[in-house]
Amino acid sequence: MVLTVHHLQVSQSERIPWLCEELGIPYELKIYQRAPALAPPEFKALHWTGSAPVITDGDLTLAESGACVQYICEKHGGGRLFPTASHPLYADFLYWFHWANGTFTPTIGRAGMVPDGQDGGGNPMVAYSKKKRDDGFKGLDARLRDNDWLAGNEFTAADVMLVFSLTTLRYFVPMELAPYPNILAYLKRVGEREGVPARDEEVGSGDGVGPGRGGARVVLQEVGEGGQECPVAGPCSQTRRLMLGGILHML
Amino acid sequence: MVLTVHHLQVSQSERIPWLCEELGIPYELKIYQRAPALAPPEFKALHWTGSAPVITDGDLTLAESGACVQYICEKHGGGRLFPTASHPLYADFLYWFHWANGTFTPTIGRAGMVPDGQDGGGNPMVAYSKKKRDDGFKGLDARLRDNDWLAGNEFTAADVMLVFSLTTLRYFVPMELAPYPNILAYLKRVGEREGVPARDEEVGSGDGVGPGRGGARVVLQEVGEGGQECPVAGPCSQTRRLMLGGILHML
Repeated sequence: MVLTVHHLQVSQSERIPWLCEELGIPYELKIYQRAPALAPPEFKALHWTGSAPVITDGDLTLAESGACVQYICEKHGGGRLFPTASHPLYADFLYWFHWANGTFTPTIGRAGMVPDGQDGGGNPMVAYSKKKRDDGFKGLDARLRDNDWLAGNEFTAADVMLVFSLTTLRYFVPMELAPYPNILAYLKRVGEREGVPARDEEVGSGDGVGPGRGGARVVLQEVGEGGQECPVAGPCSQTRRLMLGGILHML
Repeated sequence: MVLTVHHLQVSQSERIPWLCEELGIPYELKIYQRAPALAPPEFKALHWTGSAPVITDGDLTLAESGACVQYICEKHGGGRLFPTASHPLYADFLYWFHWANGTFTPTIGRAGMVPDGQDGGGNPMVAYSKKKRDDGFKGLDARLRDNDWLAGNEFTAADVMLVFSLTTLRYFVPMELAPYPNILAYLKRVGEREGVPARDEEVGSGDGVGPGRGGARVVLQEVGEGGQECPVAGPCSQTRRLMLGGILHML
């Protein structure tokens, strides 16, 4: 079975190729461009949610970041980056892995529904949501003061789940990270990882096949606007940075 | 080690005593009343997030619904209700387990920031969020047309994660379930489960100890407004319905 990552650029699906790079596993990367703002019809046809990410693996089509990440770690990664019950970081990993997309991302999105400085017509949920968002950033900054990675001293899938909300989500919801020096230092560590493509690294040789980090074989395939499948020599594949959508723009 | 469930009534933490009842495991239940709308100081002091649920287990304090549910299933439930990679329902379980709190709950909360019929001052995210919310209900209804439970023909922790958003969340965000007959039939099945307390069942004998379903020993302890620890003979412990906060109010 070939694991295929259907990557809608500038979306939560950037977690998935990054995870595959960190695990050093083979996968096919199929890139979809937004058309113009939302997912193109080819992407929406993959899964009923129409949302990124989506992976396919043989007969299986799977969506939802947490599910895709857990599935890939357990089925393709030999359990790496996903501490289990006997691991000393197990409980911390579980907390931050679920917190990233179960609390932090939603809180940012909810608070972002009403611009800062407005009160949403007196809706008490507006002030509450903004406080919970700010509490999240403060709690995260405190966690990263004494820990290199979310779960502790090991990089895990919890980090893969988190980074989108500190980087690419800023395309959609403005946020200011300057008050959080430990978060900024963390993002610098993320940017220095082997699994994160260098800013200007060339990808592939024009035949659609490029080496992944760790010896992984990455097959790129793009789906452009209007459903046209275009060769990988197009602008989206000229740097591996663009494989991951916005991630390195914002680091 | 005694597993203690710190249950903020009418909150997401109702998932946790329900899960313990379904697993038939011993636990202590410490009930916190809102004071008046938000969590009381005793609850906020448990964990930096200040949000429900929280569990303690020996030296460990853990928050976040997904983390608590996964931890309890794996560490106290022998893996029951939590299909692993060799289980035929594994991928479906993973999807719905993560979808419940990673997409469905946040989408309802985000859409609820602006009342239906208003456009949030022309913010395009408002219409987008309401469409994603409605798509979620439609997709869930379609899933439950041919499946008794979220993962398929077996009740799992995915159901434990979901039901809050169909029941108690309605205290905070109005929603109309009549257009979704398969969701309504599903909630009827949930209400008939052994793990869900009957509407008028008495709890305990006034000494703080009541039998859980499945032979579990449930120790009730309440924390009222102002930090006073009150005996379980108070109004919150007279029916096991109230153990779970709002869950049975809304079934």
